[in-house]
Amino acid sequence: MAARLSAPERDCWRWASASLRRWGRIGADAVQWAARARRGANERAGGGAGATAGGCKERAAATAEAGDSGGQPAAMAAAAAAGSDDARCVRLSAERARALLADVDTLLFDCDGVLWRGETAVPGAPEALTALRARGKRLGFITNNSSKTREAYAEKLQRLGFGGARLEVFGTAYCTALYLRRRLAGAPGPKAYVLGGEALAAELRAVGVACVGVGPEPLQGDSPSAWLNAPLEPGVGAVVVGFDPHFSYMKLTKAVRYLQQPGCLLVGTNMDNRLPLENGCFIAGTGCLVRAVEMAAQRQADIIGKPSRFIFDCVSQEYGINPERTVMVGDRLDTDILLGVTCGLKTILTLTGVSTLGDVKSNRESDCMSKKRMVPDFYVDSIADLLPALQG
Amino acid sequence: MAARLSAPERDCWRWASASLRRWGRIGADAVQWAARARRGANERAGGGAGATAGGCKERAAATAEAGDSGGQPAAMAAAAAAGSDDARCVRLSAERARALLADVDTLLFDCDGVLWRGETAVPGAPEALTALRARGKRLGFITNNSSKTREAYAEKLQRLGFGGARLEVFGTAYCTALYLRRRLAGAPGPKAYVLGGEALAAELRAVGVACVGVGPEPLQGDSPSAWLNAPLEPGVGAVVVGFDPHFSYMKLTKAVRYLQQPGCLLVGTNMDNRLPLENGCFIAGTGCLVRAVEMAAQRQADIIGKPSRFIFDCVSQEYGINPERTVMVGDRLDTDILLGVTCGLKTILTLTGVSTLGDVKSNRESDCMSKKRMVPDFYVDSIADLLPALQG
Repeated sequence: MAARLSAPERDCWRWASASLRRWGRIGADAVQWAARARRGANERAGGGAGATAGGCKERAAATAEAGDSGGQPAAMAAAAAAGSDDARCVRLSAERARALLADVDTLLFDCDGVLWRGETAVPGAPEALTALRARGKRLGFITNNSSKTREAYAEKLQRLGFGGARLEVFGTAYCTALYLRRRLAGAPGPKAYVLGGEALAAELRAVGVACVGVGPEPLQGDSPSAWLNAPLEPGVGAVVVGFDPHFSYMKLTKAVRYLQQPGCLLVGTNMDNRLPLENGCFIAGTGCLVRAVEMAAQRQADIIGKPSRFIFDCVSQEYGINPERTVMVGDRLDTDILLGVTCGLKTILTLTGVSTLGDVKSNRESDCMSKKRMVPDFYVDSIADLLPALQG
Repeated sequence: MAARLSAPERDCWRWASASLRRWGRIGADAVQWAARARRGANERAGGGAGATAGGCKERAAATAEAGDSGGQPAAMAAAAAAGSDDARCVRLSAERARALLADVDTLLFDCDGVLWRGETAVPGAPEALTALRARGKRLGFITNNSSKTREAYAEKLQRLGFGGARLEVFGTAYCTALYLRRRLAGAPGPKAYVLGGEALAAELRAVGVACVGVGPEPLQGDSPSAWLNAPLEPGVGAVVVGFDPHFSYMKLTKAVRYLQQPGCLLVGTNMDNRLPLENGCFIAGTGCLVRAVEMAAQRQADIIGKPSRFIFDCVSQEYGINPERTVMVGDRLDTDILLGVTCGLKTILTLTGVSTLGDVKSNRESDCMSKKRMVPDFYVDSIADLLPALQG
């Protein structure tokens, strides 16, 4: 059997099987949520593709770092010009944008790398969103960042000129709270051990889930038995791993002890390996912390954020979305675009963030079906490119 | 292609491709070390099996926790009785032990779970080692634990009645130092950023590698830019990840920043997911910390400990070992036994630690060649079972 598989095929199968394991579980939970939203996408295949994101994401980033071309590959341009069936990832000209927007009610945007970088708005992006609102389009903001509440995101949207209200924001802090509210329903006093910040805890508390563990937790004692004897809170029904700059070995130890208790859930806000900042800098992402807990606990976490369709289901429940009349706009193939493809949305990649056209080319040419799906319908240099189609 | 592969085959390929990536790299480094030791094992296949240990180990542990049988499976006993070609994992009777020991010069022992559990010697184990020494056998101790120096291990061996001297101990702290001495040779002032304890740093310093980073490192500042502006030490040529109870997000951030510097090595002492303690308790193992750093840095670490053959090569260099006349005794299939198989040694599984006969059965029946290799030649309930063959 071995000799029949090429190296890319072996990679493909590795990703596929990892994905089936991870996303099979999420799928079981999400089934209660997703009745309205599940159109257009093959659920099992979508789960598979979603599950591969960890592997594919890491490889995509490595490719980009290795200096893979960021320019538009000639073959892609030729395919687009010829209008062939393979003509995905077409540059969104003003003419195409007009045609697209005529068929669209709702646009969902990732935030970091799409609307802004750090504290600086992408030039022209606020004007583009203002024009979309003026045309009656409904906007939503979907972010894997768990370190801000809906209110804090709405305030940032306002501050940087995008308009926007709390109810338009779907961050992983808020969506994790929705998930726990459902999964811990019936518990006398739902409580979570939170590896994360105050924003995540605030969203959980807002749905009635008490939180313990937020903030620094230095080592207690100088031996493994002392670490294992540190007191645990009673009644913890879930360990939630989000972005936690106070992550420590002591927290890891406690998390694993809670997870040994019968029925204790393990939930990760997202699996991003890095959190990009301005000027090409980055810090370690939540995925690194989730992996450490998963490995010690020998369990896989339920993941809330993109590319898990759970976060889309949250939007869909509140908005009543028709996927065929919805666009997902993002800067990452392995989270934003994959989510859109999985959920049957139209997809636009913007080149102001993480992924490049070189990454798209690599995915198209891959022998791995999971990677082949991480290709957008359209791309723009910046979402400011939507402006000409909205003027006049 | 998909339809031709069964689920186990897909798993197999996932592990195999992960292993080839990881161990291809180790192999390149180890080639300079291993000229004398490379007999009896197919290097490429061995590397592959070694590389799969992460995946297989986790699955084996999960199987054991799920209550898979720990008794001797009937099929295995029948095969052993029939003396078939498949008759590996035979109970080591006194008669078989006498025959085995007659052909053996050297016995290599894992420590935790084999000689002792926590601070308690396995009953009869000290007497067995004393009897082996009396018969002129050479003994060595190979441990993935990086939290003790050679001296500290020798002291524990003495304290628990095993005899033993510093030069017989090959721990990952010491072997990591050997690795860095070689890899950083020629650097004007070799220096490592150490996620680990004082013992690891002491072994590194003993070979001339300066160490920074040992001990607590709480969060400095309250924003990503503050974390990224915390001062780095100049001249750090390697990040070493060992067992570090002071592991923190701040350390993770610094590690990734060092790893962005040209030529900076990433070395992990071992990939064990858990560190077993007495009474079935455990704490998170070094592998959890290595994975977090790998994921953030988008790099794979060079791994020193079992089942990497680098640690065996360290023994071989000092002992001048003939693999055909050497036995590896351990309690884990995915580290100890796999190391022995990879290096062409005879192997004995002892049932006083992590792995069970149920795990052996699962490996034998697997469709994955990498798992099939994780089967010992012999097993004992405890190494005290060697005593009858050594008496009289």
